[in-house]
Order: sequence, then structure tokens, then C-alpha cells
Amino acid sequence: MAATPRLAITPGEPAGIGPEIVVRALEERGADGLVVIADPGLMNRAAKRAGSALRFGSGGVACEPVALAAAERPGTLDARNGGYVVATLERAVDGCISGAWSGLVTAPVHKGIINDAGIPFTGHTELLAERTGAEQVVMMLAAGPLRVALVTTHLSLAEVPAAITRERVERVVLVVDRDLRTRFGIERPRISLCGLNPHAGEGGHLGREEIEIIEPACDALRNRGIDLVGPLPADTAFTPRALEGVDAVVAMYHDQGLPVLKHAGFGTAVNVTLGLPIVRTSVDHGTALDLAGTGKADHRSLLAALDLARTLAGG
Amino acid sequence: MAATPRLAITPGEPAGIGPEIVVRALEERGADGLVVIADPGLMNRAAKRAGSALRFGSGGVACEPVALAAAERPGTLDARNGGYVVATLERAVDGCISGAWSGLVTAPVHKGIINDAGIPFTGHTELLAERTGAEQVVMMLAAGPLRVALVTTHLSLAEVPAAITRERVERVVLVVDRDLRTRFGIERPRISLCGLNPHAGEGGHLGREEIEIIEPACDALRNRGIDLVGPLPADTAFTPRALEGVDAVVAMYHDQGLPVLKHAGFGTAVNVTLGLPIVRTSVDHGTALDLAGTGKADHRSLLAALDLARTLAGG
Repeated sequence: MAATPRLAITPGEPAGIGPEIVVRALEERGADGLVVIADPGLMNRAAKRAGSALRFGSGGVACEPVALAAAERPGTLDARNGGYVVATLERAVDGCISGAWSGLVTAPVHKGIINDAGIPFTGHTELLAERTGAEQVVMMLAAGPLRVALVTTHLSLAEVPAAITRERVERVVLVVDRDLRTRFGIERPRISLCGLNPHAGEGGHLGREEIEIIEPACDALRNRGIDLVGPLPADTAFTPRALEGVDAVVAMYHDQGLPVLKHAGFGTAVNVTLGLPIVRTSVDHGTALDLAGTGKADHRSLLAALDLARTLAGG
Repeated sequence: MAATPRLAITPGEPAGIGPEIVVRALEERGADGLVVIADPGLMNRAAKRAGSALRFGSGGVACEPVALAAAERPGTLDARNGGYVVATLERAVDGCISGAWSGLVTAPVHKGIINDAGIPFTGHTELLAERTGAEQVVMMLAAGPLRVALVTTHLSLAEVPAAITRERVERVVLVVDRDLRTRFGIERPRISLCGLNPHAGEGGHLGREEIEIIEPACDALRNRGIDLVGPLPADTAFTPRALEGVDAVVAMYHDQGLPVLKHAGFGTAVNVTLGLPIVRTSVDHGTALDLAGTGKADHRSLLAALDLARTLAGG
């Protein structure tokens, strides 16, 4: 029998809901086969606030210690801890690459406060890509049967059109196809792809990127054997009829694809990074500073992320 | 007792599913209080194809005749009929302005083929605004309890950021607030508003339009007494928790708001034009050329559009 995979968990922003949802998820699933990469003091304080008897480090839940720069205040960001957050992620990635752990589950970070600390950081996904040397990573969210992958992620809307290139569309779809086969075990994935413009450009009347960039990319992908539908108008691609038999929808940008996913699956949606040499899942929500320390944070997305990481890691 | 309002219906693109869904909606709801603005021959052929005994014009269903330029072929667009489609809309609007009819329900048109006919046309909504002299119209889609209004409509994605001005955001929200009160009978509407950028710009790290344009607009609107929440990240605004108690979500552009609406409500979603001096509703789908003449088109959205137009017209 295969051993239960040992997954690393990063609780993310110390002032957010991350530490407490990690405590609650471990209460519910048990800590077997898990290691938390965090300041043990932070985790023990979070457990105490959550009324949990769990203890982290020395004899308790396995903890790979990284020291906070300043004690956390739930709900209040502190730029001094920006470096701490990034250090937990780097430690986690390095342990996955070395084979110490078989996958990584991340709780939310706050990009703004990390930037305020003077550290260039645009998101988990981007950090993981850089540190693992992945050529093309893809952010995909999964909620029940609905999976949405993105061609571009954390760009201002004005930067999106120029980022949609034929090469990028092709690389992203190839990664989605490959990871759905190799990690998700879908023999011949069916993928649908949204256009960039409303009505997928309506034959060039609402933008020409479909004609000049996206359709040629789709043709090339179909010639390589990918079972690809599109480019579809985004408000068609997500109708129940269009989703029938589709394993993943590829959207061109963040707010074209994620509002549907979060509407349909909030609470159980999981963020999966495709294209990495390691398994990585994440919650689908932010740091929820307004809920931190109130005991009202919902840990269901973290449970779903843990469960999916176990599946993808072959557990 | 008030008379049943007399509503005008335009079946739209003659090669699309419009004529046949009009036939089927009239079969189901009856033709009382309705007038169809179309070529009577087109409608009679559609009835025959649909196996309906309905007859249009002279003694049958009330029909305001506009002559086709070329006989329709279901599923095949013909630019010669571009002028016909626009003429039916103009006739309908003029009759509503004159008071002959109390509202307008439209089936889908194909913008591309109208443009190919050499007629500048960007959409129903834009034509209605121009012809009624409305200062600011707003496209809103409604499906059950979910209503989504748009700050911009049929622009290529690259044109969206420059179109988001403080004045425009304010005008749109004021129209949504006013029409929800006066036409929908909601005493004090609660409106939520999406940011332009992913994560609503994340404090300026993913775009500055929220800080420079949208937040000042929201402040001004709240100072005028509007019950407004936002700017919210779009993938937060549509979560069940964020939608609680909200009467309408205002999205900045087409594919930020409509994929959710069509996912949640396809088949019964209705498009309503706010800010007009007349009542106007529409189906939420396109011409579905691939379904035209097959008998498989779904007429539920047209039924919902008819029912909502009756309600808004006070019937």
C-alpha cells in the first residue's frame, strides 16, 4: 500500500483567516500526513482563539518553523510580516521539489501588503512558477464539475488585450490538456475556450483578436489533437447547455471566468496550479480580514483544497 | 379596470430563431394585447414550419407589416434584409413613443449582418437610446432574483478601460436606482458595483481606475442617498453571501457580468433596457442560426420577456 502523501500547508497572511481555517481543517480531517509551514507561536495562538486543543510543533502537529517578524494582530495587516509570508512559501516549494513533501496546499496571502513591504509579488501562482522554473503555469479553479482555467491572471484590465498572444493561448491550452490527463486522469479532455471580446468579437465587429490570434491558435491546437471548442462568447460558454461534456473552460482573463465559478461553487471551490512539477492547490478566497479572529470564517474551501491535493498527489 | 397593455413584438433577424419563438410564445400565452411588427408572410411561414395554426395579419394575429427585402432562409443570413430588421425596430419605437403601444419586446437580431448591409448598428439598446433621445440607457439582465446592469455594453475589451469615466458610472447607477424604484417598485434599491480590475484593483496594485474613478463615483452616489456597495471584486460580488439583499449588481463590462447571469438563469433570463421613456424587454440569447428551422429553439426567455414587459407596463 502507498503511504499517505505528506502534504505541506502554508497558512498565508498571519493577520487573515488563514491560521484559524488551518486549525479548523486539521480538527476536522486530522493532522496525519500533513506539515504546517508557519510560526508555531502563531498557530498555537490561532488554536487557542479557535477554542482548539491542537498544539503545533514539538510533539504536536508537525510544524516546519518560520519566525514571524512581528506578532500578528487578527484583522490588521503589518508590512513587517511580508517577508515572513514569502519565506513560508519558498520553504514549502523547496520541500516539494526536494521530495520531502508530495504537494502543497496554500491559504490566502495579501499581495498588497507584501508589495508594501518592498517585495515584488504578484501572486502565489507566479512565485511558484518562478521558483520551480516552470515554463508555463496555469491557474485553474475547480468547483464540483466546473473547472475554469485562465490565460491571464493578475493583470489590470487594460493590460489584458496585449497579453493575449497566439503562443500564450496555445501553451495554456496544452498545459490544461496535459494536466487534466496526467493529474486528473481524464483520458481525452474536452476543453472549451472563451473569446477575448464580448460575443467573441462577433465576426470582427467587436474586436479582431479572435480572428487574428485566438482562432488560429484554436486551429493549431485542434491539429495537434486537442478536443477544443471555441472561441465561444463567454456568456454562452458557461450556459448549462454549452458546459455539457466539457472538462474545463479556458477564459481569457480573471473576471471573465472566476465570477461564474465563485457564484456556482463558493465555499467548495479549489484553486489548482497546472503546469508545475509539483502538486499545488489553494483556497478560492482571500484573507477576509474583516472575519479574522471572529470565528466566522468558512474552512470548507481549505478542506476541499486538502482533499484535492491528496487525490492529485496519488493519496 | 386598466386595459391589458398592447405590447409590440419584433421577431428580429428573419433567418434566426426569432420568428418561430414568437409563434410558440403566442401559442402558449395567446395573442391578446400583442402586435407583431414583421413581414406577415415571414410569420405565416414560421407558423407553418412550427406546425402552428396561427395566422398573422388580416383577421389573424395583429401584425404591423414591414416587407422583407428577400425571402428568408432559416439558418442563412442575407445582408439584403439588414434594412428590414432595423425598420421593424424603428416602427416599434415610434409606436411606443406615440402611445399606440405601451411597450416593446424584442427577439434577437444579428449585428454583424446589419453592419455588412452598410448600416451602422451596435445593438438594440443603442438604437433605442438614439431614437428616443434618451440621455443614458442601461442594459440590465434579470433572471429570477439576480439582476445585472452594465456600465459599458458592446465594446471590444481593449476599449473598455477608457470608457469607464466617473460621469458614466454615476449616470448608470442613477438610472438603475431610479428605474428599480419607478418601474420595478423597489422602494429603496440596494445596488452593488464591481471594480474594473481583478480584485477591484487590490489597492492600486492591479490598476488604479478604482482609486481614481470608481471610488470617487461611489462616494458621490452615496452622498446622493443611493444605497450602494462597492467597488467589489467581481468574483466576490456574485457570491451568494455578497448577493444577499442586493437588488442589482452593476458590472463594468459585458463579460464581467453576463456569464454569471446566463449560467444561473439561461432560458428564463430577460434583457431590460433602463433609462428609456418606453418599456423595453428582450430575450437574453442570440439568433441561434444553427437551430433556426429545426424546431429545437427554446422560447422560455421570450415568454419571460413578455411577462416582464406586461408587469413593467402596468398590465
